[in-house]
Amino acid sequence: MSGDDDIPGIGQYDDFHTIDWQRDIARDRMRHRYIVKKRQDSLWDLIKGAHDAWSGWVCVLLVGVCTGIVAGVIDIGASWMTDLKFGICPQAFWLNREQCCWSDTDTTFDTGNCSQWLTWPQVLGGAREGPGAYIISYLFYIVWALVFAALSASLVRMFAPYACGSGIPEIKTILSGFIIRGYLGKWTLIIKVVGLILSVSSGLSLGKEGPMVHIASCLGNILSYLFPKYGRNEAKKREILSAAAAAGVSVAFGAPIGGVLFSLEEVSYYFPLKTLWRSFFCALIAAFILRSINPFGNEHSVLFFVEYNKPWIFFELIPFVGLGIIGGCIATIFIKANIYWCRYRKYSKLGQYPVTEVLVVTLVTAVIAYPNPYTRMNTSELIYLLFNQCGISNSDPVCDYNRNFTDVNSAIEKAAAGPGVYRAIWLLVLALVLKLVMTIFTFGIKVPCGLFIPSLALGAIAGRIVGIGVEQLAYNYPKIWLFSGECSTGDDCITPGLYAMVGAAAVLGGVTRMTVSLVVIMFELTGGVRYIVPLMAAAMASKWVGDALGRQGIYDAHIALNGYPFLDSKDEFQHTSLAADVMQPKRNETLAVITQDSMTVDDVETLLKETEHNGYPVVVSKESQYLVGFVLRRDLNLAIANARRTMEGITGQTVVIFAGTTHQQLAPPPCLMLNRILDMAPITVTDQTPMETVVDMFRKLGLRQTLVTHNGRLLGVITKKDVLRHVKQMDNEDPSSVLFN
Amino acid sequence: MSGDDDIPGIGQYDDFHTIDWQRDIARDRMRHRYIVKKRQDSLWDLIKGAHDAWSGWVCVLLVGVCTGIVAGVIDIGASWMTDLKFGICPQAFWLNREQCCWSDTDTTFDTGNCSQWLTWPQVLGGAREGPGAYIISYLFYIVWALVFAALSASLVRMFAPYACGSGIPEIKTILSGFIIRGYLGKWTLIIKVVGLILSVSSGLSLGKEGPMVHIASCLGNILSYLFPKYGRNEAKKREILSAAAAAGVSVAFGAPIGGVLFSLEEVSYYFPLKTLWRSFFCALIAAFILRSINPFGNEHSVLFFVEYNKPWIFFELIPFVGLGIIGGCIATIFIKANIYWCRYRKYSKLGQYPVTEVLVVTLVTAVIAYPNPYTRMNTSELIYLLFNQCGISNSDPVCDYNRNFTDVNSAIEKAAAGPGVYRAIWLLVLALVLKLVMTIFTFGIKVPCGLFIPSLALGAIAGRIVGIGVEQLAYNYPKIWLFSGECSTGDDCITPGLYAMVGAAAVLGGVTRMTVSLVVIMFELTGGVRYIVPLMAAAMASKWVGDALGRQGIYDAHIALNGYPFLDSKDEFQHTSLAADVMQPKRNETLAVITQDSMTVDDVETLLKETEHNGYPVVVSKESQYLVGFVLRRDLNLAIANARRTMEGITGQTVVIFAGTTHQQLAPPPCLMLNRILDMAPITVTDQTPMETVVDMFRKLGLRQTLVTHNGRLLGVITKKDVLRHVKQMDNEDPSSVLFN
Repeated sequence: MSGDDDIPGIGQYDDFHTIDWQRDIARDRMRHRYIVKKRQDSLWDLIKGAHDAWSGWVCVLLVGVCTGIVAGVIDIGASWMTDLKFGICPQAFWLNREQCCWSDTDTTFDTGNCSQWLTWPQVLGGAREGPGAYIISYLFYIVWALVFAALSASLVRMFAPYACGSGIPEIKTILSGFIIRGYLGKWTLIIKVVGLILSVSSGLSLGKEGPMVHIASCLGNILSYLFPKYGRNEAKKREILSAAAAAGVSVAFGAPIGGVLFSLEEVSYYFPLKTLWRSFFCALIAAFILRSINPFGNEHSVLFFVEYNKPWIFFELIPFVGLGIIGGCIATIFIKANIYWCRYRKYSKLGQYPVTEVLVVTLVTAVIAYPNPYTRMNTSELIYLLFNQCGISNSDPVCDYNRNFTDVNSAIEKAAAGPGVYRAIWLLVLALVLKLVMTIFTFGIKVPCGLFIPSLALGAIAGRIVGIGVEQLAYNYPKIWLFSGECSTGDDCITPGLYAMVGAAAVLGGVTRMTVSLVVIMFELTGGVRYIVPLMAAAMASKWVGDALGRQGIYDAHIALNGYPFLDSKDEFQHTSLAADVMQPKRNETLAVITQDSMTVDDVETLLKETEHNGYPVVVSKESQYLVGFVLRRDLNLAIANARRTMEGITGQTVVIFAGTTHQQLAPPPCLMLNRILDMAPITVTDQTPMETVVDMFRKLGLRQTLVTHNGRLLGVITKKDVLRHVKQMDNEDPSSVLFN
Repeated sequence: MSGDDDIPGIGQYDDFHTIDWQRDIARDRMRHRYIVKKRQDSLWDLIKGAHDAWSGWVCVLLVGVCTGIVAGVIDIGASWMTDLKFGICPQAFWLNREQCCWSDTDTTFDTGNCSQWLTWPQVLGGAREGPGAYIISYLFYIVWALVFAALSASLVRMFAPYACGSGIPEIKTILSGFIIRGYLGKWTLIIKVVGLILSVSSGLSLGKEGPMVHIASCLGNILSYLFPKYGRNEAKKREILSAAAAAGVSVAFGAPIGGVLFSLEEVSYYFPLKTLWRSFFCALIAAFILRSINPFGNEHSVLFFVEYNKPWIFFELIPFVGLGIIGGCIATIFIKANIYWCRYRKYSKLGQYPVTEVLVVTLVTAVIAYPNPYTRMNTSELIYLLFNQCGISNSDPVCDYNRNFTDVNSAIEKAAAGPGVYRAIWLLVLALVLKLVMTIFTFGIKVPCGLFIPSLALGAIAGRIVGIGVEQLAYNYPKIWLFSGECSTGDDCITPGLYAMVGAAAVLGGVTRMTVSLVVIMFELTGGVRYIVPLMAAAMASKWVGDALGRQGIYDAHIALNGYPFLDSKDEFQHTSLAADVMQPKRNETLAVITQDSMTVDDVETLLKETEHNGYPVVVSKESQYLVGFVLRRDLNLAIANARRTMEGITGQTVVIFAGTTHQQLAPPPCLMLNRILDMAPITVTDQTPMETVVDMFRKLGLRQTLVTHNGRLLGVITKKDVLRHVKQMDNEDPSSVLFN
């Protein structure tokens, strides 16, 4: 089929290596041409050809379906176990509180307490209310949280260490063309799903949205092995992984378009337009399947559906931009503190006790969180509460206004805030501080944990507080010209829930530095078509403040902290260095080269032993170093071993011939022809090429290395590692921090 | 500031030339570094630096605002002039029918006839109804249509020939890095706006959406000259143009997200992520401004707002996919016939009489369209009518069901279609055929014309007919298991309007081969959040049918017809040819090269006279053709002319020196140093490089040419023209059809 397949193992990559996009895509095109040619031969080949043509679509379809199902399982499991901390449904223990109460018609639903559902004090035979019941509930809450967290951390530690964290930094690195074996494997998948359910249920300050991207990517990786086109070609596999990442966000938020844009903007690297369409299909199928499973039992396909659709007032852009600035500051505090703590964990003894750390964090979180109703409740519920308007059915203290509802359909009148609102504000401030501190310590512990939901919650709290402030200002000073137009009718012209939404977007934007995808996700998440402009204003302000205070988003900061070899396609290379400054070898060293037709097997093996390069340029001769091609260390090793095994008369003195057709006749008979493993078309640059062009070529063409020439003569090599080190050096960072062999 | 600026004119491009993306971006980075360095010098430089940093955002803001305003002007103008064909508001002739009737409270609005508004028979003192009035109306309709069309065609012919057509094929070509001077100039802008209002009002089967993209791009081009960063750098200017194209679609459909995706998927070529964010901003501002102008006087920001939100039934996917197939077929018929007719026009005498052609097409359209109410009405109104559900207020024959509305809020019951519906179906079939035929002849005539709206209308008609069929099937055979679940309650379970929407998406998808952007535009256009899956199914089916029946979408077909040098980034290069097969010169010719230090001014000028290449490789010497660099013809001409003008002692015998530092001392004193115009870092490939890699490099790096070497020795050159010709040749098309000098 192709030269690569003659020698087993050629065309694969080692762990922690960078892939060569050009070569992989060329291999795929060769395979494709072979199949197209064969198609005319027989019906079986025609079917194989059709299978090959459809396999991309079938694969993303399967990924979408599986992602939707897994997301449904996680949602149902996490919801049941979260409620288990508070009580149980004795008649049907597998039901969560909401489902338990459905069968019970005699209570109002919104308090969440019905006679079917027993809290732990009741199960133990005590009263539902009272100090005793409170203490028993408190203790049960803590114990369950510790049990869940301990289980989650132990599972991760024992079976799949790669299952911890959000996984998005690693997936960004993998999609940029890096191999981490096992990171997207089946054990990681299973443990991540189970661990995620447990860690979400433990009440830690974390979300399930980031890990959903990792889980979907695992599914994409595993399912791609069903289709050799993708499973055996690392570059093509990344098309499936991009689509899977989109499906992950799609099910996490019920936002298919936002998921595709997230994949495009944030995680993907190589994103041809064909992938855009497939990603959209994958994301849509996943969202559709999840909606059909309907784990939340409500008819809205959006997570935090908002019912209001009131126009915002133009001057409100000022508080919205203010919220953006606040969001940017909160995000910067979070990123800096979290990176500081993660660095401390990495280089201190703390890193050796991951389970203990998880238990301590869980204990502290549970003890502090329980007394405050806003931290005790599920974070998603908190966000939903804060996003919403105070309607007739909302009895939370945050809606304790001095107004009487007479008619469900009438407009909500302006009203002064009651004492409940002021108490709620204080509790929300406490919740904000607690969540911020706990999330700093939580993101990075060795359980599956995401930070979309905690970030949204931080922003929603800040936004709601600002919103109530503006609302009361409008109520108390209706004569100010700002409020005079829209607020003069007596209706409530300011919607504090909208401020919560805008604040949530601001903090999430500051933390992740997402832009378009953030706005689209928020818009799909809430169904608020009208509020794109406010969301955009806040996201922009937040991103600018974040960029001014600290260069990197949380994912890029974690990539840098872990030293992943990620060449960011968003950063522009701003320096004036030339290829000659970056290439190896430096002035006083010599370049390890192979000559095209004058080295023996022994010479080559000595070179392979003495040097550790991943590849060697092949030149005309030692004296005239004009470039002929490039050969990979791995291929060379495999080819020599294969020749020794299969061919006769291969000794240490056999001459190795690399060159093309013209030299075949010239060599003496006992020679080893290795022209099949020689890359005759290596990418070259001249020594005077500006590094910005070289960096651009590495990014856009997905190179592993480029050869540097001057007037046709080979001078040296630039590998991706050299580029990454050079970028770090130019940015005044430690160039040795790049993990790479 | 940089070497480029020493000699005036260097760094610019000639008309119909390809730009060199790498060089332009390098120039911009150099400019940026210079500004950053200067920033510390003085306050003035600091302000200049800040201005430079912000100019991208300010520019897209201005583009967004202007696009919104211009779109408002076009909407208002076209609406007034369209109504002028039917009558006039005598008390205030500048009002259209809708505005005229606002002031009139004594009539129901929906018929559009009020006592304030006079039809032409009434103006002439006749009756409103009756055969006489009908004939007078008919005549006025035809005369006005001819006047508008004649004006539009004459304006285009006299002042701005580039203003005709939709402009999207040309904008795709320009964004891919081609220079067409004047295509985005101010005259084109003015004539396109005026001509568009006239041609839309003339009742021709065309839309204003495509031309809006061209108009927005003109605005982007003109406004970019306010900011030297963009105006003087063709590569950077294309970032603004991409954002402008997004704004154009955004105002055309009120779909900012869809506009950005359209720009990304369909028209843009070089689309860094920074551009994504700016495009979104630009599109949002444009939509916001247009909504503030509110030309339609309704509160919905979406063009064809649908009020229904009923779930679709799973089995309905079958008719939806069927509509996709029908849509793909209609689209293929349209594309093939239109291209056939356009080719005929191009190569026959017909092309010499553009105004006559416009008048004939207008006359035929007007004569046939008037008697059928569905072709007489504005196409947007027709689409709106077909998309909507038959509610209590809808008195059109298409809603003539045997049902009685008792309560506005109650569900719509299932009902048998009345005679009006059957008559309407016949008229719709006639309208479908007429519109299809007329659009084939209309798209390509020399007035501004787009085909989004005609395509949507064709699909909406086909979809509505299919929808009524399925609905009546469900009414007559409610026992079939397919209908048994959802349709058993007596409510109307099938929404024909949804079928119209799906059909519209199918035809538009088949014509343009848009995918994600199409679904997002339809979703934003109608506000139908629920219907993404049906829209997607139809769009996919339509695209696949279209791809199977004919390879290209309408824009790509027009690009090929006009021979624009567009290297499609979506088509994969499938062949096995090597760089050696494509490069110039072929075997028997010699390559025109310049030596680095042994040619005189006369030698160089002789070479420039004898050859017509746009650039020349510079080699070590005639004997040892190792590559030193590359020099452009234009730069060489300018540099020699400049040297003759400014330097003393330049004669024909002066030696021209290109090489770098080492050779400066060796040359005799009267020599001409041209190392500043020498590109020391040309992109090279080896002769064994597969063409797929070369094509990839041309696309991703935006090259103008690449040099081909073998073992360091220069063999030849591959220009973009060679690549385009080779692609055409491999696809069995005429390679000489590429327009290129």
